[in-house]
Amino acid sequence: MTETLRDVGEFPLIERVLADLPRGSAVAVGPGDDGAVCSIDGQIVVSTDMFVEGVHFKRDWSAADDIGRKAVAAAAVDLEAMGAFPVALLVAFAAPGDLAVEWAEDCVRGMREEAATAGLSLVGGDVSAAKDITLALTVVGELRGVPPVLRSGARPGDSVALRGRLGLAAAGLAALRRGFRSPRLAVQAFQRPSPPYGAGPEAAAFGASAMIDVSDGLLADLGHVAEASGVVIDLAADRLEVPEAISAVARATGASALSFVLTGGEDHALVATFPHGQVPATWTVIGKVVDPAGGPSAVLVDGEPWPGAPGWSHFDRASRP
Amino acid sequence: MTETLRDVGEFPLIERVLADLPRGSAVAVGPGDDGAVCSIDGQIVVSTDMFVEGVHFKRDWSAADDIGRKAVAAAAVDLEAMGAFPVALLVAFAAPGDLAVEWAEDCVRGMREEAATAGLSLVGGDVSAAKDITLALTVVGELRGVPPVLRSGARPGDSVALRGRLGLAAAGLAALRRGFRSPRLAVQAFQRPSPPYGAGPEAAAFGASAMIDVSDGLLADLGHVAEASGVVIDLAADRLEVPEAISAVARATGASALSFVLTGGEDHALVATFPHGQVPATWTVIGKVVDPAGGPSAVLVDGEPWPGAPGWSHFDRASRP
Repeated sequence: MTETLRDVGEFPLIERVLADLPRGSAVAVGPGDDGAVCSIDGQIVVSTDMFVEGVHFKRDWSAADDIGRKAVAAAAVDLEAMGAFPVALLVAFAAPGDLAVEWAEDCVRGMREEAATAGLSLVGGDVSAAKDITLALTVVGELRGVPPVLRSGARPGDSVALRGRLGLAAAGLAALRRGFRSPRLAVQAFQRPSPPYGAGPEAAAFGASAMIDVSDGLLADLGHVAEASGVVIDLAADRLEVPEAISAVARATGASALSFVLTGGEDHALVATFPHGQVPATWTVIGKVVDPAGGPSAVLVDGEPWPGAPGWSHFDRASRP
Repeated sequence: MTETLRDVGEFPLIERVLADLPRGSAVAVGPGDDGAVCSIDGQIVVSTDMFVEGVHFKRDWSAADDIGRKAVAAAAVDLEAMGAFPVALLVAFAAPGDLAVEWAEDCVRGMREEAATAGLSLVGGDVSAAKDITLALTVVGELRGVPPVLRSGARPGDSVALRGRLGLAAAGLAALRRGFRSPRLAVQAFQRPSPPYGAGPEAAAFGASAMIDVSDGLLADLGHVAEASGVVIDLAADRLEVPEAISAVARATGASALSFVLTGGEDHALVATFPHGQVPATWTVIGKVVDPAGGPSAVLVDGEPWPGAPGWSHFDRASRP
């Protein structure tokens, strides 16, 4: 018989999760006391994200370890988008008692692996019963004396540049929704994002004026930058890469390939604005910041408003709380 | 008709929650970007706690604002127990779509009020749909150059001292379980704990050798200190205050009044060990640390093991995940 969380209980599960935990040099006191203690260089950046089964993920579409990895990736890239260096991760994990222990352990293993990749030390957490599998992740980063890169700093004349992939996760989701497991590149991008770790602090060091991670779609997320900065952002469509995997899904679904790239979420790329001439070589320039000339802030594609929705309606965000 | 979360949607709810948010001096960037930015003095202390309806609270027994207050109090006192000064609070909030908006807003108001009392600035969070009302709270504190007070530092010869109340919340819960709403002192203690904010850093400044908050019961939580420190802790029963409200519940339920004080959870008192002669005047000495003389670590009452369970079986911790 499958061993469930109810069989094991809260405390043994926590012990298994914390066994042999790697600890970054910043961690002075790890899990097991009333709180963890970390040494910090400069200001901290903190962010919390919640992932609920049926709202943010589906066990049919992703393995447990990939769900754990993706949750950590989504949280970690919020630190990157502020220009912060990763320090610590805390995980609140709730699940129904009849969940297989193996699923929980695989999920935690995925979280631990992605945390190691992202440079985060797992320093604390909590475990509870709940009807839905729920992960609430908090990440802590440090700025090491560099000012944070906000959404509000884009200025006319700046270049808009990208690190990471766009549209692949949305194409993978579209394929999964139709019952396909391919194209593999797209499906894997949905199941296991690979954010450009390290690119956030790099952008900050190069003087990025604004930055955001693309979690809801390029147009939607750049819309936040345009609004916060009071500018117009004009993207050059021919600077946006459209991989064959996206074109294949576009042909099969009747959607436009470019719409996946412009509005697909969950790839967790980084997009930033830089003063002209200061874009790091590893980033791709995809557009420019323009003076709104008294008009409203906006994101344009080749000088025109994009006719479709700016954000991909990704997995069940439609199901509002 | 009652307005529900589904009617309002995620983003307007977040806007309402964040309106007119007070911001502590440490907060450089508040909610609204990819992460919040805080200035930190010394090392940070971080801790995450999860509160799930039906496991940690019941809407029948507590008002929405009290549930919010209690969650923040429970999280904040973890910082106190490390000797840390409060800085920031992040809240992940999940609830079913048919929950009344008013309930969510009252809960958040309670969280904001308790955060202000505790000295925490609400700097971020996330909102999602879920079947259970779920709060995942992360608190960040700073040590300001003082070493953290761990569970492992108690030494033979130390005094054991208390700040805060014991047993009242458990007595209040016992009354509520039997359908009573009195004694008011006890029921209110269950619904709205009042942790001794500020006592944690005070204890650290006085050289506390170990500290923990009493969330699961004095014997259970001191058991963690005894085990981590490798010592025996001997409590003096006559130093423990037994309020009349507890005696009244004990008479009505046939339980021993002292058992509420020794094993009742959720009052969120602080208990610490201090080198002899260094106990702050505002703390009450309730026992001493003794050499285990080769034997196991233990918590004794007047030199004898306590015959009952060390931790109060408080609300549905029995329902393991």
